[in-house]
Amino acid sequence: MKSFLLTAAIVIVIGLIVVANIHHPSPVLANDKTEPIRQIEAAMMQAGIDHGTQGLMSYYADNAVELSDNSPAVVGKANIAKQMSFLDDKQNRLTWTPAFADISDSGDLAYTYGKYEFRVTGKDGKSSTAYGNYTTIWKRQADGQWKVVLDTANSGPLPAS
Amino acid sequence: MKSFLLTAAIVIVIGLIVVANIHHPSPVLANDKTEPIRQIEAAMMQAGIDHGTQGLMSYYADNAVELSDNSPAVVGKANIAKQMSFLDDKQNRLTWTPAFADISDSGDLAYTYGKYEFRVTGKDGKSSTAYGNYTTIWKRQADGQWKVVLDTANSGPLPAS
Repeated sequence: MKSFLLTAAIVIVIGLIVVANIHHPSPVLANDKTEPIRQIEAAMMQAGIDHGTQGLMSYYADNAVELSDNSPAVVGKANIAKQMSFLDDKQNRLTWTPAFADISDSGDLAYTYGKYEFRVTGKDGKSSTAYGNYTTIWKRQADGQWKVVLDTANSGPLPAS
Repeated sequence: MKSFLLTAAIVIVIGLIVVANIHHPSPVLANDKTEPIRQIEAAMMQAGIDHGTQGLMSYYADNAVELSDNSPAVVGKANIAKQMSFLDDKQNRLTWTPAFADISDSGDLAYTYGKYEFRVTGKDGKSSTAYGNYTTIWKRQADGQWKVVLDTANSGPLPAS
């Protein structure tokens, strides 16, 4: 009987630990210094989906630079907004998933990289999706707000690769 | 005569200021916090020219990531070295010119972007050159050395654009 109670107690304790971890995921994530960057980058993506080019651009620094395939560097938020105007078409949708983020010890410079998907719907109503890697560099501005200072993307590969 | 002497004195003083500035360019450059990054990036380029892939890779962090067109993210110095093995062919030459550099207040995270040129010589002896934008992110390691943690490049545009 003693042995049964001990076994039952061990099972209950293990069960409680498992349940505790299900409800409270690893605290590493909550304390991760890059969490504010991941959050603001997710907010920027949603702003682009909801409000198009100006939604996305509201997260860019005035002197930001955009580096895209087959284009010279586009410098300045106003110029980038022109290049990104395709986002004002509600049929087009730019989304991405960061794979990694890091931030400086002083908390003023950070970057993420990951994969993006850009779904385009043509006039014929047919959709196609372009995939690729992206890198975004964030800098905390004088007023304390994080803004994108550089964004760059490669074309390809397909999602399976 | 007095007027002549005054004019001569002014001319000499202006002349001295000009000469002083020729020999001592703007101190802004010397005090630029990004100067160590520009210097190490130039040294990395030369190491790539002189010693091929391993020369370039000696400036990469073990956990660095390379994001290239039409390729999934390549993570880890050993894997990047394989992808970059084309640099071991002395006929091929990768050079670049940074357009901008920035560094965190804590001096532990920095980035540059600019244009690269990649000259390839085929088996027929004919050379062609590819151009594009690049972004490199540097991180100071625990031992104080700066290493590349992320490098990414776009294809195009032509040098005139």
